[in-house]
Amino acid sequence: MSTVSIPTTLSEQVVAAIRSVVGAGPAVLHEPSFSGNEWLYLKECLDSTVVSSVGKFVDRFEAGLAAFTGAKHAVAVVNGTAALHIALKLAGVRTSDEVLVPALTFVATANAVTYCGATPHFVDSEARTLGVDAEKLRDYLASHTEQRAGQCVNRATGRIIRALVPMHTFGHPVDLEGLLVVAHDFKLALVEDAAESLGSYFRGQHTGTFGLMGTLSFNGNKTITTGGGGAILTNDAELACHAKHLTTTAKVPHAWDYRHDEIGYNYRLPNLNAALGCAQLEQLPSMLVAKRELFQRYHAAFSPVMGARLMAEPEQCHSNYWLQALLLEPKCADQRDAILQATNDAGFMTRPVWILMNELKPFVSCPHMDLAAAQSLSQRLINIPSSSSLVPVAP
Amino acid sequence: MSTVSIPTTLSEQVVAAIRSVVGAGPAVLHEPSFSGNEWLYLKECLDSTVVSSVGKFVDRFEAGLAAFTGAKHAVAVVNGTAALHIALKLAGVRTSDEVLVPALTFVATANAVTYCGATPHFVDSEARTLGVDAEKLRDYLASHTEQRAGQCVNRATGRIIRALVPMHTFGHPVDLEGLLVVAHDFKLALVEDAAESLGSYFRGQHTGTFGLMGTLSFNGNKTITTGGGGAILTNDAELACHAKHLTTTAKVPHAWDYRHDEIGYNYRLPNLNAALGCAQLEQLPSMLVAKRELFQRYHAAFSPVMGARLMAEPEQCHSNYWLQALLLEPKCADQRDAILQATNDAGFMTRPVWILMNELKPFVSCPHMDLAAAQSLSQRLINIPSSSSLVPVAP
Repeated sequence: MSTVSIPTTLSEQVVAAIRSVVGAGPAVLHEPSFSGNEWLYLKECLDSTVVSSVGKFVDRFEAGLAAFTGAKHAVAVVNGTAALHIALKLAGVRTSDEVLVPALTFVATANAVTYCGATPHFVDSEARTLGVDAEKLRDYLASHTEQRAGQCVNRATGRIIRALVPMHTFGHPVDLEGLLVVAHDFKLALVEDAAESLGSYFRGQHTGTFGLMGTLSFNGNKTITTGGGGAILTNDAELACHAKHLTTTAKVPHAWDYRHDEIGYNYRLPNLNAALGCAQLEQLPSMLVAKRELFQRYHAAFSPVMGARLMAEPEQCHSNYWLQALLLEPKCADQRDAILQATNDAGFMTRPVWILMNELKPFVSCPHMDLAAAQSLSQRLINIPSSSSLVPVAP
Repeated sequence: MSTVSIPTTLSEQVVAAIRSVVGAGPAVLHEPSFSGNEWLYLKECLDSTVVSSVGKFVDRFEAGLAAFTGAKHAVAVVNGTAALHIALKLAGVRTSDEVLVPALTFVATANAVTYCGATPHFVDSEARTLGVDAEKLRDYLASHTEQRAGQCVNRATGRIIRALVPMHTFGHPVDLEGLLVVAHDFKLALVEDAAESLGSYFRGQHTGTFGLMGTLSFNGNKTITTGGGGAILTNDAELACHAKHLTTTAKVPHAWDYRHDEIGYNYRLPNLNAALGCAQLEQLPSMLVAKRELFQRYHAAFSPVMGARLMAEPEQCHSNYWLQALLLEPKCADQRDAILQATNDAGFMTRPVWILMNELKPFVSCPHMDLAAAQSLSQRLINIPSSSSLVPVAP
């Protein structure tokens, strides 16, 4: 015997709204969808025995990524973290530098800075985009840094602030217009962490193509996946060439000599993973349609829910809606954990946003600006099931 | 009209000997062989949609590696370089340390040291094993280092020499008995670079299981491949657990919190690549039989060739014969390039051994001992086609 109960608490309303969109569940947060040539290309790759560090699928995947994003060059690598590491190195980040990264991000953004021997310097986000707040950052840099010989120096630490790495949270483009001006005015290299934003556009231009370089991720939880994988985007041919060199052990081409002319990395994307990526890239447009449709359905379902708002793409932006996110009103922040518990108990996988970087043990002593907005957001965001497969779209 | 010419030069004799074993060619240096469940497991992985960072194939691959090598624990990672990086970190290698590595090795061994902020310190090899010369190393350390507070200090640089990383060249086990004593006497952590030696044994015990940790590679050119992949072997449960933690972004387990308690790495082996590895591991025993048979055939073919000797496994060792290698007599060293040219022209891919690490631009200023043997070997070694598929063995 089943009873129909009318949702009264916010937790119950959230569970009911999710259920009304995705069905009885269970539903994970994000799972990949393989509905195209994935089997065909993997089999072709295996049959060729060319599964490893070079191969036609790597070339094709890179060309496909460049074509899709409009970047002049794409260099496929083993994951998004590796892409960030190399992009930062090529942006000139060196030991004892500082790099501005949002406190509200996945840990890879901050980790990649440390791989260069540099220190992350955490900056605040804005509720509108969930990304770096350009205006607040400008004020902070104006009062806390000075230009010395064309470099931005942190007055408190005496260290050079070399780069700025905004991240497009859940696929929502950050305020690129504002940040490009800040980067220019304060002589910072702009590297976009576009790990979450394949298929997201700022004023019609693809994220990851505005800065000196941008980086993508194709981890299993991303819009498209290669198992593990990533890419560096750039419009600079020399940087692209150097990125390829650094990510392939810096070996100088030769028929048989093994000469490496700098410290390189084994960051090649295997051809096997690229084969999967080629098939996924073909599916990307229809996945993006499905994810936008899922947003619309959630939007309708959550409209009557007081206290929780579904994140929508910022103005002048086109988001990939990688992860759908609820933003609780400040007065409902104390109900976040109850909502997380209720939704997960009901079989709908949800999670809060990441713990702020400056609160993690390895980064507690890193410099940071006032993080009031990020702190507030980190208490109020909840991701809900977001797979494109939740909204089957006709091919 | 074809003519039969009798080989007279050493180049011609080498080409003829290779042809007598592998047929008319062409033959690459090493290609993978997928004759088992590779497609089945890849398909199963794709059907499950679990292609990325966790999955049952990762668990199964790790268990299979531990079972095959006899190591208590195996941690699968994204490639052999990543395995070395983490093994060195866990061995306590820190910024400003030095690490002893052979000058005669692939660049990954030296690169991994630099990823820890440390400096490689190059040591000599012996012709018998192609690996680190234990006796010569002992003499060198005795005269160039001193023990301070239980640590080995390089007198010339004042830096701590933290670890020793022998590499089992082409699969031939290094003198582990001698090196274990040197490591013990001079207080060095022993980390075995077993990238090339899966299936190789020293006195019946698998390489990579003697030191504190050992590392494997499953790059496309290795005996078995996962596209790209590697593993850390250890008998220490705590080290294994820490290796898993560090290679999976150091995330503390929790239903939804993203808490990372130290600087971690995105070094996970994707489930997709592990699926390939599980199938390859099943094929490994028959591949090893094939590679040993290939050695026997080459051995017979090269016996009458004066001036070039086929590398055989050292005494008390069982080699996987990953790459077959010719060692030219010193008086024939000047014919190496002619042999490389003639064999490659004839369609048989051959290559010299790596350029010595101390001769590479990024490492020219690193400390090194006398490298007479490595220098001589580096002028005289030639790898010849070595794929297990060259000797089809009944399953």
